[in-house]
Amino acid sequence: MIEQRVGQLRGKLNEFNCDAIVIFSMQSNADIRYFTGADIDGVLVVDKEEANLFVSNLYYQTAIDIIEDNVVLSKDLDDIANFLRRKGIKRVGLDFFRSSYKQVEAFKSFEIVDFSNQTLLLRMIKERDEVNQIKRAAFMARNAFIKVYPYLKPGITEKELADELVYQVRKQGAEKEAFDTIVASGLNAVYPHHMPTDKKIEDGEFVVIDFGANVNGYNSDMTYTFLMGEKTDEKKKLFNAVFYAQLYSTEMIAPGRTKAGEVYERAKKELAKFGLDKYFIHGLGHGVGLEVHEFPYLVPANDMVLQPNMVFTIEPGIYIPGQLGIRLEHMVLVHETDTEVIAFTPFMEAM
Amino acid sequence: MIEQRVGQLRGKLNEFNCDAIVIFSMQSNADIRYFTGADIDGVLVVDKEEANLFVSNLYYQTAIDIIEDNVVLSKDLDDIANFLRRKGIKRVGLDFFRSSYKQVEAFKSFEIVDFSNQTLLLRMIKERDEVNQIKRAAFMARNAFIKVYPYLKPGITEKELADELVYQVRKQGAEKEAFDTIVASGLNAVYPHHMPTDKKIEDGEFVVIDFGANVNGYNSDMTYTFLMGEKTDEKKKLFNAVFYAQLYSTEMIAPGRTKAGEVYERAKKELAKFGLDKYFIHGLGHGVGLEVHEFPYLVPANDMVLQPNMVFTIEPGIYIPGQLGIRLEHMVLVHETDTEVIAFTPFMEAM
Repeated sequence: MIEQRVGQLRGKLNEFNCDAIVIFSMQSNADIRYFTGADIDGVLVVDKEEANLFVSNLYYQTAIDIIEDNVVLSKDLDDIANFLRRKGIKRVGLDFFRSSYKQVEAFKSFEIVDFSNQTLLLRMIKERDEVNQIKRAAFMARNAFIKVYPYLKPGITEKELADELVYQVRKQGAEKEAFDTIVASGLNAVYPHHMPTDKKIEDGEFVVIDFGANVNGYNSDMTYTFLMGEKTDEKKKLFNAVFYAQLYSTEMIAPGRTKAGEVYERAKKELAKFGLDKYFIHGLGHGVGLEVHEFPYLVPANDMVLQPNMVFTIEPGIYIPGQLGIRLEHMVLVHETDTEVIAFTPFMEAM
Repeated sequence: MIEQRVGQLRGKLNEFNCDAIVIFSMQSNADIRYFTGADIDGVLVVDKEEANLFVSNLYYQTAIDIIEDNVVLSKDLDDIANFLRRKGIKRVGLDFFRSSYKQVEAFKSFEIVDFSNQTLLLRMIKERDEVNQIKRAAFMARNAFIKVYPYLKPGITEKELADELVYQVRKQGAEKEAFDTIVASGLNAVYPHHMPTDKKIEDGEFVVIDFGANVNGYNSDMTYTFLMGEKTDEKKKLFNAVFYAQLYSTEMIAPGRTKAGEVYERAKKELAKFGLDKYFIHGLGHGVGLEVHEFPYLVPANDMVLQPNMVFTIEPGIYIPGQLGIRLEHMVLVHETDTEVIAFTPFMEAM
């Protein structure tokens, strides 16, 4: 167990008036890994006295090796409920977004307390070592891209480029890519989450490359857009609109003061100057850490204040149906009084 | 929409006495992809008259292009509930394992019907084209391994081998690896889900390699175990115990008659002959399709009968703490009167 983090969680027991918190590996192992140090599909139970990780046989040896004590060999929900009952626990906190209906139902004989998003709120503020891991992941991804950049020529297919990039990300030392690498060229770039195809990259096309690395569980996430061939004034104008939307929204962030939703609006306003805001169809950014998408979300009306030691993406994009797509994404680390762009793209001269 | 599959789902409305079924992209997009053909994070709503896919802006264009009609631009749970209300729907079926508590709660003004596992039960029986995709995924993985096999020598690290294997899987045409590739050597093989490290593979060690490919969304999953260097009688005996557990459990399957739990017991019995059953710490197998782990599960006491057009793994393993691990995994396709091993390993002479 990582005592300091478990302690933070335990500190919330009083605040939420509950006797125990039960955390599942739902969409990923990120919560479990954060509090225990073990990348394991298990169930973490934190009460006022102790923290126990419930695991199946499959992960028992791993859990014992990493956590040593407080590992229980069972993932059965009834066993966990009985464990809580024996301890005299009455009120159980659960994350309603990150627990299945079945999982919550297993605790219906207790008073169930809504503990939603609380682990995400803790994980949102990164420790120094977490920042270092994210930076390593960003640098590995960038260095991998530099190796692959010479291949980015008309004639190579989207998938060939993606395959080489994934390979190089791993060769740089990353455990794996952070998420499915996107290489989207020409009309394919109209889809923000396009998967690489056997389509050849051609002259005159924008190529959107969205990729990242995973290092010790921590992710990076960045997107470059290149214009192949002649840089016409019209295309430069589109690219620059996105570039300035990214630049100005990044620059406006005042640690401890700026709200996530305001940053989104700033990017949108910049795109609106060029009549392009209607083509900006997703959020401006998201936190990055043990999950690729986590708190904070830079989306409309989000009043969450951006604070020191948050790490998130800023990624404005435009997607013009039947024509093209452009997205630029970097990661921002918030310091006490200013912000730092992590692994700023060295490819701005592409325009 | 894939009308025939949506029709099967609609056929369950009466059986479960509900007016509509709501399906979420929970652990993966597999359900949505199965019924709509689109690999999208969306919410599928099937009622007696029609099927609609609710998506966010991010996937709207993709959804329109693939599905054309019956795409609704919103993923808001209240919007979906209002949609159902306007249609006069009273009873809503939900999968309690594959919906978050929050998602189910959004429909509490309706009569909620337990529709758990029903999509998995439909997906469990593969169509001819699905089997072909799974076979392609298996062959691509095997062919990738053949390319990498020459590197499997003392001195290469687990991670180097895994990196090359992932690269070759993609070069064979797969979209990506099916899951995180496992290369576990020597003591590391004691952990069934060990992630590749910088440890060098050495003479005298067993090396467990568990890998697969993803092709058009369909997965393959296989595990080879090699013994580096001298094949001592003792080590051969251990390997052969696992080999015969796999062989006899595979051979016993009578389509339409054998139960999943019986196959597990057969493998366990074979290992028990050598006193090794206590080291067999996981299920014998799992279905493979749009998800790497799906129905049926070959686990103790599972009374599900193995039927034609199921595809699942058979993967006995032994994990002796402080010593070694061995696992052998192939995929089995059930025919009308017999079974077929998909991509049988050509490496049996390794022993």
